[in-house]
Amino acid sequence: MTDHLGPALDGTSPGTSPGVTAAAGFRAAGVTAGLKASGSPDLALVVNDGPRQVGAAVFTTNRVVGAPVTWSRQVVRDGVVAAVVLNSGGANVATGPRGFQDAHATAEKVAAGLGVSAGDVVVCSTGLIGVPLASERLFAGIGPAVEALTDGAGPDAATAIMTTDSVPKTAHVRVETADGSFVVGGMAKGAGMLAPAMATMLSVVTTDADVDAATADAALRAATAVTFDRVDSDGCMSTSDTVTLLASGASGVAPAADVFADAVLRVCASLARQLVADAEGASHDIAVHVQGATTQDAAVAVARAVTRSNLFKAAMFGNDPNWGRIIAQVGTVPEHVAPYDPAALDVTINGLQICRAGGAHEDPAQLDLAAAREVHVVVDLHAGDAAATVWTNDLTHDYVHENSAYST
Amino acid sequence: MTDHLGPALDGTSPGTSPGVTAAAGFRAAGVTAGLKASGSPDLALVVNDGPRQVGAAVFTTNRVVGAPVTWSRQVVRDGVVAAVVLNSGGANVATGPRGFQDAHATAEKVAAGLGVSAGDVVVCSTGLIGVPLASERLFAGIGPAVEALTDGAGPDAATAIMTTDSVPKTAHVRVETADGSFVVGGMAKGAGMLAPAMATMLSVVTTDADVDAATADAALRAATAVTFDRVDSDGCMSTSDTVTLLASGASGVAPAADVFADAVLRVCASLARQLVADAEGASHDIAVHVQGATTQDAAVAVARAVTRSNLFKAAMFGNDPNWGRIIAQVGTVPEHVAPYDPAALDVTINGLQICRAGGAHEDPAQLDLAAAREVHVVVDLHAGDAAATVWTNDLTHDYVHENSAYST
Repeated sequence: MTDHLGPALDGTSPGTSPGVTAAAGFRAAGVTAGLKASGSPDLALVVNDGPRQVGAAVFTTNRVVGAPVTWSRQVVRDGVVAAVVLNSGGANVATGPRGFQDAHATAEKVAAGLGVSAGDVVVCSTGLIGVPLASERLFAGIGPAVEALTDGAGPDAATAIMTTDSVPKTAHVRVETADGSFVVGGMAKGAGMLAPAMATMLSVVTTDADVDAATADAALRAATAVTFDRVDSDGCMSTSDTVTLLASGASGVAPAADVFADAVLRVCASLARQLVADAEGASHDIAVHVQGATTQDAAVAVARAVTRSNLFKAAMFGNDPNWGRIIAQVGTVPEHVAPYDPAALDVTINGLQICRAGGAHEDPAQLDLAAAREVHVVVDLHAGDAAATVWTNDLTHDYVHENSAYST
Repeated sequence: MTDHLGPALDGTSPGTSPGVTAAAGFRAAGVTAGLKASGSPDLALVVNDGPRQVGAAVFTTNRVVGAPVTWSRQVVRDGVVAAVVLNSGGANVATGPRGFQDAHATAEKVAAGLGVSAGDVVVCSTGLIGVPLASERLFAGIGPAVEALTDGAGPDAATAIMTTDSVPKTAHVRVETADGSFVVGGMAKGAGMLAPAMATMLSVVTTDADVDAATADAALRAATAVTFDRVDSDGCMSTSDTVTLLASGASGVAPAADVFADAVLRVCASLARQLVADAEGASHDIAVHVQGATTQDAAVAVARAVTRSNLFKAAMFGNDPNWGRIIAQVGTVPEHVAPYDPAALDVTINGLQICRAGGAHEDPAQLDLAAAREVHVVVDLHAGDAAATVWTNDLTHDYVHENSAYST
C-alpha cells in the first residue's frame, strides 16, 4: 500500500498530494472570480468524468444553514453527483430567497458548462454570514473555471477554497487489492468555526473505486464520525460545512466495503489533522484522549468537555500543565452521560501522570510543553473499556486577534 | 424601600455597601493568614450572633468538588449555620483525604474560637486546584480572625476572599414592612470560572429577617437560579463555588416569604452583576436576552449557546456586530430543546435590528459598540412567550493573558 497521506490523526508526518485529482476520472480547477477583496483564487470546481457518477455527502447539523446546504441536500439524495462547485468569499447564509436562487443558478450555470444536470451539482460556499453573495462575479467565473479544468489541478482547487487557512489541505492514498489498485484523495478548508456534530469545514473526497452510492455513503459517514467530528478547534459549529464523496469507478476496481471505508477514513483523518494544525492563531495541537469510559459516547462527551474549556486552552497556550482545569471540566459531564468515580480519575500529559486517583501525583514542573506543538492529554475514567480522542487547539492572543477583526 | 444595591442585573448604577455586616446580628473579619504569596488578606470569617442561626446554601453541580464543598453540604443539611469561614490562596480541591481533614479541622478551630459546634461552620476555599492547602498557616490565622470580628468589617471580609478580582463585591438592601424593616446584605468573589448550573463563585448573604430554614432555602434557590446561574463569563464551571445564606432574626421582623425572596433576589442580582463587571480581562459586559421562546428553559438554552461562542465573544471584543455568529449559535440548539423556525429569527444589538426574519436588516455599521461597556443582544425566536437573559463577557487578549499565566 502506497501512502501519500498528510499528517494523520495519529500524527504521521505531512506530505504533499494532488488531492481531488489523485484519483482517475476527475478534473478540477481553481480560479479567481473576484469574490475576495484580496484577489486570491476563490472559485473551485471538481468534476467527475465517470464512468460512474456516484455521490454522497454529510452536512452540518446546525439548524441555521446556508442556501448551498439546502440546495445540495436535494442533490445528493439520489446518490448521483457529477460535480461540486465551491466558492470562498461569501457563505450565502441568512440571505433569504435570493440566496437560494443564487445557489440554484450557480448549479445551473455549472451544469450548462459541463453538459450535465443541475440536479447533480453540489454547491458549497464559505465566508461571511448574512452578506448577499456577489453572484454576478461568481457566475462570470464559472466559464473560466470550466475552461481551466484539468486532471492535475487538485492543488489549485484546494487553494481556491481557502479562507483564513494559511495552507491548502490535500491528501490521498492508493490501495492495492488482488484486482488492482484504487485511489482515494481529497481536499479540505477550515481554520476556525471547527466544531463537532460533523460539518466542520468544506471538503471534497474523490475516488476511482467502483462503489455504489450506499457503500460510498456508509464509508463517508463512518469516516467523518471519527475524524472531522472529533476536531473541535473553537467549539463553534458552522452553518455551511459539507463533506462530499465522489466515486468515478475509473479504476475498474471494486474493493470490499471495509477496505474502501478504511481508505476513506485515512484520507479524512489526514485532512482533519491538517485542519487542526492550521487552526486560527493556534500554537498547540492538543489531543484529548479519554479512556476507561463505559461507552465511546461517554468518552467523547468527556473529551469534548475538556476541549471546550477556555481556561484549559489558555493554560495550554501558557505551557502551563494546569490539570485542575482538566478535572474540573471532566466533572461537568453528567453522571447519566458518563459514569465514573471522581476519586478514580487519572490525568497524564505527554506521558507524565500528573494526577492519580483524583489527586496530584508526578510534579508538573517536569513537563516542558513549550518544546513541541503537539500536546497529548490522557484522561482515564477507570469505569470501562471504551475510549475516544478529540483534537483541539490552545486559546491564544492570535485567536482573539483574528476573530475580533474578521468581518470589519 | 432604601436601596443600596450595586449595579443590578438590569443595570442600575453601582453603590457601596458594608455587605455581610449590613444586617443586624452579624460580625465579620478579613485578615492575612499568609496563604497568598502577595501578602494580601486571604482569610474571611462571617459569624451569625443570632438570636437565630438559620442557614441555607447552594453548591456547584460539578461532580469534581473540593473538600470544603463535601464538608459544607453536611453542615447545611440541618438548616443551622453559625459561621462561614472562607479562604483564598488555595481551593483544597483534588487533595484527597488530607484535604477533607483540613476542611474539617478548619471548621473545628473556628468553632473552638467562637464557642459553637464545628457542625455549624461552613467552609469555603478558592484558589488553585490540586495543591495541598497551607493548612498550618490557615489554622494560625483563625485566632486573629476571631479577634478581628466586628459588626462593621463586611468590606474587610469581601476583600479577603478576592483572587483575581480587582474590586471587592458587596451589596445590601433594606426593606420596610408594616412590622418594621429588615436587611439583606452580601458579598461575593469570582472573576473567572464563572459558569452556570449554579456555583459560579463564593458568596455569603446575610439577613436579619426572622425566617425559617425552609424559607431561606427556597429564597436562595430561587434567587441563584436567575442571577448567579445566568452569569456565564467563560463557560467554565468551578469545583468549589458556594452561596450561603445566613439569617439572624435580629430585626425581629418576619416578612412574607415573597417579600423576603425578592430582597434576596435583588442582592444576588447585584452581586452577580458585579461579577460580570469584573470578569477577568473583559472589556464588554454582554447581556443576551432571548425572547419569544416556548419555555424559559428553551430561552436559557439559546442564550447560553450564544454566550458560549468564542467567535461571538471575540467579535464583541473587536466591537464587530457580527450577527452571523449569533444565529450560527442559535442554530446549534436542538429542536427538542428550543423549537423555532430559523427563517423567523430576529437579532437586535443595542436597539438596532440588524437581523430580521433570518436575514440582514438594518446596517450594522450604524452601531458603535466601542462607545459603552455594556452590550445588549436580543434574540427573538418568535415561537412563544418565554424569555431569559444570560450575561457574559467578551473574549479578549487580557483574558488569554491572565488565564495562560495563572498557576505558573
